[in-house]
Amino acid sequence: MDLNIELPLFLGFAGGLAAVAYAIWKSRWIMGLEVPDEKLRRIGGYVAKGAMAFLSREYKVLLPIALIAAALLFFGGHSHLKWEALTFLLGAGCSALAGYFGMRIATQANSRTTWAARTGLNEALKVSFAGGSVMGMSVAGLALIGISSILYATIHAFGRDAEALGSWSLPILSGFALGASCIALFARVGGGIYTKAADVGADLVGKVEAGIPEDDPRNPATIADNVGDNVGDVAGMGADLYESFVASVLGCMILGLAIDAPPDLKLRLCLLPLVLGAAGVIASIIGMSLVRVREGGSPQAALNRGSFVAAGLAALFSWPIFHYGLKGMTFAQGFTANNLFVCTIIGVVAGTAIGLLTEYYTGTGRRPVDSIVRASETGPATTLITGLGVGMASTVLPVVVMALTVLLGYWQAGLFGVAIATVGVQLTLGIQLAVDAFGPIADNAGGLAEMSEQPPHVRANTDKLDAVGNTTAAMGKGFATASAALTSVVLFSAFKEESGAGTIEITDPMVLIGLLLGAVVPYLFSSMCMMSVGRAAFKMVEEVRRQFRTIPGLLAGKAEPDYGRCVDISTSAALREMILPGLLAVLSPVAVGFLGGVPMLTGFLVGVTISGVALAIFMSNAGGAWDNAKKTIEAGAGGGKGSESHKAAVVGDTVGDPFKDTAGPSLNILIKLMGVMSVVIAPMLRRYWGN
Amino acid sequence: MDLNIELPLFLGFAGGLAAVAYAIWKSRWIMGLEVPDEKLRRIGGYVAKGAMAFLSREYKVLLPIALIAAALLFFGGHSHLKWEALTFLLGAGCSALAGYFGMRIATQANSRTTWAARTGLNEALKVSFAGGSVMGMSVAGLALIGISSILYATIHAFGRDAEALGSWSLPILSGFALGASCIALFARVGGGIYTKAADVGADLVGKVEAGIPEDDPRNPATIADNVGDNVGDVAGMGADLYESFVASVLGCMILGLAIDAPPDLKLRLCLLPLVLGAAGVIASIIGMSLVRVREGGSPQAALNRGSFVAAGLAALFSWPIFHYGLKGMTFAQGFTANNLFVCTIIGVVAGTAIGLLTEYYTGTGRRPVDSIVRASETGPATTLITGLGVGMASTVLPVVVMALTVLLGYWQAGLFGVAIATVGVQLTLGIQLAVDAFGPIADNAGGLAEMSEQPPHVRANTDKLDAVGNTTAAMGKGFATASAALTSVVLFSAFKEESGAGTIEITDPMVLIGLLLGAVVPYLFSSMCMMSVGRAAFKMVEEVRRQFRTIPGLLAGKAEPDYGRCVDISTSAALREMILPGLLAVLSPVAVGFLGGVPMLTGFLVGVTISGVALAIFMSNAGGAWDNAKKTIEAGAGGGKGSESHKAAVVGDTVGDPFKDTAGPSLNILIKLMGVMSVVIAPMLRRYWGN
Repeated sequence: MDLNIELPLFLGFAGGLAAVAYAIWKSRWIMGLEVPDEKLRRIGGYVAKGAMAFLSREYKVLLPIALIAAALLFFGGHSHLKWEALTFLLGAGCSALAGYFGMRIATQANSRTTWAARTGLNEALKVSFAGGSVMGMSVAGLALIGISSILYATIHAFGRDAEALGSWSLPILSGFALGASCIALFARVGGGIYTKAADVGADLVGKVEAGIPEDDPRNPATIADNVGDNVGDVAGMGADLYESFVASVLGCMILGLAIDAPPDLKLRLCLLPLVLGAAGVIASIIGMSLVRVREGGSPQAALNRGSFVAAGLAALFSWPIFHYGLKGMTFAQGFTANNLFVCTIIGVVAGTAIGLLTEYYTGTGRRPVDSIVRASETGPATTLITGLGVGMASTVLPVVVMALTVLLGYWQAGLFGVAIATVGVQLTLGIQLAVDAFGPIADNAGGLAEMSEQPPHVRANTDKLDAVGNTTAAMGKGFATASAALTSVVLFSAFKEESGAGTIEITDPMVLIGLLLGAVVPYLFSSMCMMSVGRAAFKMVEEVRRQFRTIPGLLAGKAEPDYGRCVDISTSAALREMILPGLLAVLSPVAVGFLGGVPMLTGFLVGVTISGVALAIFMSNAGGAWDNAKKTIEAGAGGGKGSESHKAAVVGDTVGDPFKDTAGPSLNILIKLMGVMSVVIAPMLRRYWGN
Repeated sequence: MDLNIELPLFLGFAGGLAAVAYAIWKSRWIMGLEVPDEKLRRIGGYVAKGAMAFLSREYKVLLPIALIAAALLFFGGHSHLKWEALTFLLGAGCSALAGYFGMRIATQANSRTTWAARTGLNEALKVSFAGGSVMGMSVAGLALIGISSILYATIHAFGRDAEALGSWSLPILSGFALGASCIALFARVGGGIYTKAADVGADLVGKVEAGIPEDDPRNPATIADNVGDNVGDVAGMGADLYESFVASVLGCMILGLAIDAPPDLKLRLCLLPLVLGAAGVIASIIGMSLVRVREGGSPQAALNRGSFVAAGLAALFSWPIFHYGLKGMTFAQGFTANNLFVCTIIGVVAGTAIGLLTEYYTGTGRRPVDSIVRASETGPATTLITGLGVGMASTVLPVVVMALTVLLGYWQAGLFGVAIATVGVQLTLGIQLAVDAFGPIADNAGGLAEMSEQPPHVRANTDKLDAVGNTTAAMGKGFATASAALTSVVLFSAFKEESGAGTIEITDPMVLIGLLLGAVVPYLFSSMCMMSVGRAAFKMVEEVRRQFRTIPGLLAGKAEPDYGRCVDISTSAALREMILPGLLAVLSPVAVGFLGGVPMLTGFLVGVTISGVALAIFMSNAGGAWDNAKKTIEAGAGGGKGSESHKAAVVGDTVGDPFKDTAGPSLNILIKLMGVMSVVIAPMLRRYWGN
């Protein structure tokens, strides 16, 4: 076995296999649990069916798009682009497979969580977290397996030296990242539109007009609403983090290979992130085993314990990896194993810090949310102004943390250090995503408890988990934005490396034009997403009203609504509306690159990223803060439910919905996708412009 | 007379004098008009007194700040920085003087416009436009006089060659621009807070709670509201455009001197913008003479005629100026007089195009506003989502126009071409600002008609002018943003020139850190502005409620409210709240420059600009569109006044107020001020970092 190449590839592959095996083991355990309650099983079945129907229809829409894109790569490009067509389909396929598997289990885990909540909090946590961990480990596992297999195959086909790696293997791998990016974009945008159309429709007609409670089985849109939680927060988030991980590993490899070092060492540096990923899998599995809670204990503390232990272990494991990987490295190359170890720590700390900051700005009982609660006493206008102000102010500290990460990473080990810190942020992807995906499962479990009329203590238990899920969701969003921003920074450098451009002067007018144009793309994209939600929600409102009007005995609870129609409306709207913003994201870097040149495209990427990061944090946090302000009032503050404050807070929450669940998170993908796309077309641009 | 130096300086100075003479002539004419109606005179007096009281208190607050800043420049720096301390005070003084003079006349012209509206529309237009033209010509005149005097003095003191100009005169002139910038920032932020606190306070308690109409004399905040229109839209806008003009001329001079040409030619290129400014004054005066309307005619057409003729003439005049100025220029230097002439045309067209685009996105009866009107039928949440979506979408085309301006300007004549196009946008500053400042005068005239109970046809005439004023205000805001963005682009290059930095690579991590941090500054700044408005409005609401409660007979119209207290609350709040965002703007480039270095500061400036331009357009246009959606509904659409749609639209308008009148326009100054500040500290940074 070649210790420079085959050992790291083997470790990466083995780590991926371990993750997938863990996911299969957990999913078998979940599927083995019985749900004796017939009504619960039936309603849970509706949600599962709706979710899987959405996914399969989504993939059917995406398949021709993916095939066309692959054909363009195949026939349009030459040499390694022909292979990229294949890896593009593989990347898209792996992302879709992880999403499918994770969603399938998540929508089985929800009713089982409801049933487990009859027994106790720990049982419910165990089932819901197991459901989340299937998603987490599928994503981590398929990413590692995909990357290591492609590298193995290409190295064997095109050569095992650094030269071949740089000119064949990594460009071909970028096709894999692009495939993952494209699926992620459509999953996020489509999922975001789906979930908010259903949510707004269910709330506006059900809660406001008909006056029935949330998750009431008489509401025709309630199944669509519960499906939406899975589609947006499980599948969407999974595809998002899958993409971040693959793209940051790719960027890190390109920068590792660019280091001025002996060929053997270059190879080892380049393949380091794969081994780190495998270590992250082991750390995640250990962390997951610690997530349990005693009756009366805090589920939040249990999740934190698991995440922190996993992060600590992953950092610890990286120490021997760096020391082995940098064997023979001299200080002349600018850094040592210790420097890279520090970079990993920086990444781990930065990810946690940004999560905590997000929690501060959007969390219940904190000053920002309380200020919105107070403002809601003077009506919707002040609620809105204050929430927008909170969201804007909340952009500063997370970006300062990102800037510090870049600064410290760079000081430690140059651009490669920044890349290692970025991989460090996502080291324990498996457990982080498990924690994220647990939230919507618990949320669903509560909805199912309501709809299947379980005894009150069941709902009490699921409510406790749901509250924790809201916090983890906020932290997860912060984390996803941090990954996206740092990954983009790594991708700029990787793009520059691949495009062969010389210095790109920031005050060069071509670069400035790219920057200016790039800065408005996130606004256009967000506008499209928000308008799509508006149109889809409008259709949903009309359908729910129609059912209340035309189905006799529906409001009296004597007839069952036509859940399927509502699911169908959300599905079709989401699939139709995701195309335009998707094309904007995919095509604009190609257009700028070929019409304006490499400097303008570089400016464009930077412009999209810095404007997009700020806008994404603003929108996500404003939305999160409004949501929790409403919850605070519903818990009794400022007059409680039904008061004028509550009405004002509901307006804030409704405006915040497309902010935080559609436009905000989709921007994360936008910025990464453009970076990956540019890396993919970099060799073509190089030839086209003759750099 | 030295034709290379003294002739252009003389022409610039003469143009400035002509503008000031015109302003004095018009102001004498206005002051000579009689207002025989005692009540109108008295109430007009309240507004005038309130406005002047605000200005003098504002200047009293700013004087010590300006003196401290000047002392820091004097003692902190060395060589020309000592002189910059003086020019800084001069720049601040000239801006303040122009503001004072313009405001004084504007607040005299308002009651006279009301009186003239008794006679007819043309009379009212004549008076109100004359009032606006005093502001416009004062600003244009004092800018030209200031720049040409300083250059004259420094050239005589330090030498008349290109070398001395570059190392003494222009750095000293940058102090003048910085003084103007600082006054502009505080005037915009303070004015914006003042006007919106008064507006929101007057509306929330008067219109909503007490149910009395707009501008009702029983409302204690109504005088403050009318004062606010002057403080925000006359003084604030004047200081804004003053700064843009001075900064773009400065940037253009620096770039003109940097061209590789014989010394004589360099001098002429450098002083070109001064002569162009003088030509713009003449063109503006001719254009102004065309602004008149027959009974039943359209005031909008009259204003357009004046502006278009002025723009056309200014472009025409530039032809001989370029041909004389570039005498002896060979094609080897990259461009000819014809190229610069094309740049001027590009600038004129771009300014107009951005104004028209703004009008499209915010104008009554256009698709964007109509979509908000429709959305208001389903409540405040959809009104807000749609308005935010419209605002976001509206950022794209104006930025595309800016990008094209940079591109075409650069193709014609390099960076200098971009600078000439930027000056071209602002060539007819005099008439443009006159058109802007005419709006609030007409608005005030309508308020005074209401408060002094004039016959209905008076209000009908002022309403016609006010409607025109709303359109011109929207176009003016687009124009101000375009000037700010292009001026900033010129300032980056000027800063780079002055700082002596080599290439600044965009993917250098230090630059990226600057970009990331810069991108969130506009968000922090906007958040501060919006929160300030919220706090100030809250105080105003309390005071108005208190007066309604404690003054007997107030609502019955038997007692007069205490207008002075409300004016005082707005004034104190504005002056207190403007300090923090002001310091953020002034100090952050200094901190980044000295802690992070020139590349990081360059990235920071670019980040602030591109993120700030997008955010400013988004906020201004969303606010403008909500405002006009409300007006459309008040005119009868969607159920008319008092309907649920109207209530939803009022929420949108209230959220839009701090967007469009406080945060949005203040961002324009933020981005310019940071650029000018960086140019001022560039020589210090050069020494500090040893470039």
